Amino acid sequence: MKPIIRFPAVNRRVLLSSLAMLPVLSASLHSTSAVAQAQRDPLPSWNDGVTKSSILDFVARVTAQNEPYFVPVEQRIATFDNDGTLWIEQPMYVQLAFALDRVKAMAPRHPEWKDKQPFKAVLEDDMKTLAESGERGLVELVLVTHAGMTTDEFAKIVSDWLATARHPRFKRLYTELVYQPMLELLAYLRANGFKTFIVSGGGIEFMRPWTERIYGVPPEQVVGSSIKTRFEMRDATPVLVRLPEVNFIDDKTGKPIGINEHIGRRPIAAFGNSDGDLEMLQWTTLTGGARFGLIVHHTDAEREYAYDRHSHFGRLDKALDAAAINKWTVVDMKKDWKRIFPVD
Amino acid sequence: MKPIIRFPAVNRRVLLSSLAMLPVLSASLHSTSAVAQAQRDPLPSWNDGVTKSSILDFVARVTAQNEPYFVPVEQRIATFDNDGTLWIEQPMYVQLAFALDRVKAMAPRHPEWKDKQPFKAVLEDDMKTLAESGERGLVELVLVTHAGMTTDEFAKIVSDWLATARHPRFKRLYTELVYQPMLELLAYLRANGFKTFIVSGGGIEFMRPWTERIYGVPPEQVVGSSIKTRFEMRDATPVLVRLPEVNFIDDKTGKPIGINEHIGRRPIAAFGNSDGDLEMLQWTTLTGGARFGLIVHHTDAEREYAYDRHSHFGRLDKALDAAAINKWTVVDMKKDWKRIFPVD
Repeated sequence: MKPIIRFPAVNRRVLLSSLAMLPVLSASLHSTSAVAQAQRDPLPSWNDGVTKSSILDFVARVTAQNEPYFVPVEQRIATFDNDGTLWIEQPMYVQLAFALDRVKAMAPRHPEWKDKQPFKAVLEDDMKTLAESGERGLVELVLVTHAGMTTDEFAKIVSDWLATARHPRFKRLYTELVYQPMLELLAYLRANGFKTFIVSGGGIEFMRPWTERIYGVPPEQVVGSSIKTRFEMRDATPVLVRLPEVNFIDDKTGKPIGINEHIGRRPIAAFGNSDGDLEMLQWTTLTGGARFGLIVHHTDAEREYAYDRHSHFGRLDKALDAAAINKWTVVDMKKDWKRIFPVD
Repeated sequence: MKPIIRFPAVNRRVLLSSLAMLPVLSASLHSTSAVAQAQRDPLPSWNDGVTKSSILDFVARVTAQNEPYFVPVEQRIATFDNDGTLWIEQPMYVQLAFALDRVKAMAPRHPEWKDKQPFKAVLEDDMKTLAESGERGLVELVLVTHAGMTTDEFAKIVSDWLATARHPRFKRLYTELVYQPMLELLAYLRANGFKTFIVSGGGIEFMRPWTERIYGVPPEQVVGSSIKTRFEMRDATPVLVRLPEVNFIDDKTGKPIGINEHIGRRPIAAFGNSDGDLEMLQWTTLTGGARFGLIVHHTDAEREYAYDRHSHFGRLDKALDAAAINKWTVVDMKKDWKRIFPVD
């Protein structure tokens, strides 16, 4: 297995020069005419072009009453992948960064980890050895750091971590590194009667503490991977204890399964960025009626990252080929997005 | 194990005499003054008294802005059991009646069932032998009749069956044998900003085809037991195939687990009728803030059924004791409900 964790060399000069441009962009966006423009344009961070048009056309089509492609409000279900579709997933999944930090925080209570892989590698910041521990090593890290506490305790641990942890390149909170154009898209769909769901390979309980505040997606509209829990009465108080046992992996073929289990009807629009989203896009679009599939292609190494067919996280290979065949919209991040992050 | 299926002797005279009263009730409900009354009273099928007051008081309390027990709209989650709480569950769970009918419908393709239990018992209407096959026999029946087709095909099978199958005593469609007072309660809670969920031990895919039409509860707000599914491409069309393997049992301690998995936040109100709902009621109410727990106690053998501590379906024993300790509202169906079914 190839090393799965490789921090890209940060080109500080490029980063700084692009940061220097921000006040200009920011000022223009907040000028009076820009605000007026934004009121007319529901997707102000999207450049005009075929990508943006495909979204606007689809929404116009399914909301036009008495037209052939009209879809009743209750059937307007849209599903969004999270990592790489709504927020950053490089240089590693945010949840993995969380797990590594948790290992370090928990280490004093686990002196044996100093000599035990994959914990030793984490404690020594030895990403190469960690990568060599493979998927089995990563699953072990996730289970150890995500289990053994109640669901309420875990939600607090996640919230506390997200309140302070910063992205290694952008030095921002992870919740600031969400994609502004996708926030606008979520709001635009909801304004048109859509119910927006997250359907992510990430942990369902890792997302729920913050998705409502950041994306406007409430906990009951978040689908994700999960571990098993056990109901217990502790001092006459009911708790759910998180167990070190995988319950469900909401990735690849797991996404349609998770959608069916949680939502119980087929989405009419799905948004992803990697091969993990292929089956969700197939499930959503390869059926009758007006359907919309969209893939975010990360093409902007300067403002964010550029990766696809050979990436360790968020690999986009088969789904990119399928997009061409199935006429899914492919976002060229560099070309289609005026801004990447809300802070830009 | 005691026989689990025993059709109660129907007292035809009582049934007919109560049916004879219906036009009177019906007429009074639709008179002008009754309509005006209904407009003022959100729960017209509930008799005045402590039960009804406890509901009205709770809703008033959590919706009064700037008061100590105010609950923001997004946290107003209410969960309802289905069998025995929203619709009839005697003389057997509706889903079991469905499974038995399915065995008969599928029998021509399974000649071996003539000599194989528990199928033989079903085909011969031998309820005693069927009951002796125990839980294992019933699970086998359910898996055989609920698996092997796609999710879309299963939804159609359920809808077709419910369109014609009739209750043995009331001779009505099962979807007509839902509780009118509970329909009013669902609507009343929604009118006060609650999101209403079903959390049932019954099959999630057995409920979803009709809960929106009958209860106003959309598929994505239905939690239930499930079997595993497999994603497949069939002639370039994606399908989910139902497998004869249990995925999740949404009963007893499974209810808080299912609530956490599907909803991701704790309800503030929960409604049940049996020991299967005990842990859901504990999870909902034994915590800080304004909380509401309610148990439907079936006390009306004349208009519906009377059963509790020793019933084969919907046994209410531990949860009835817990209701007294935890101050949950207990509905005395005979005393508290003016009408039972919408058709009354």
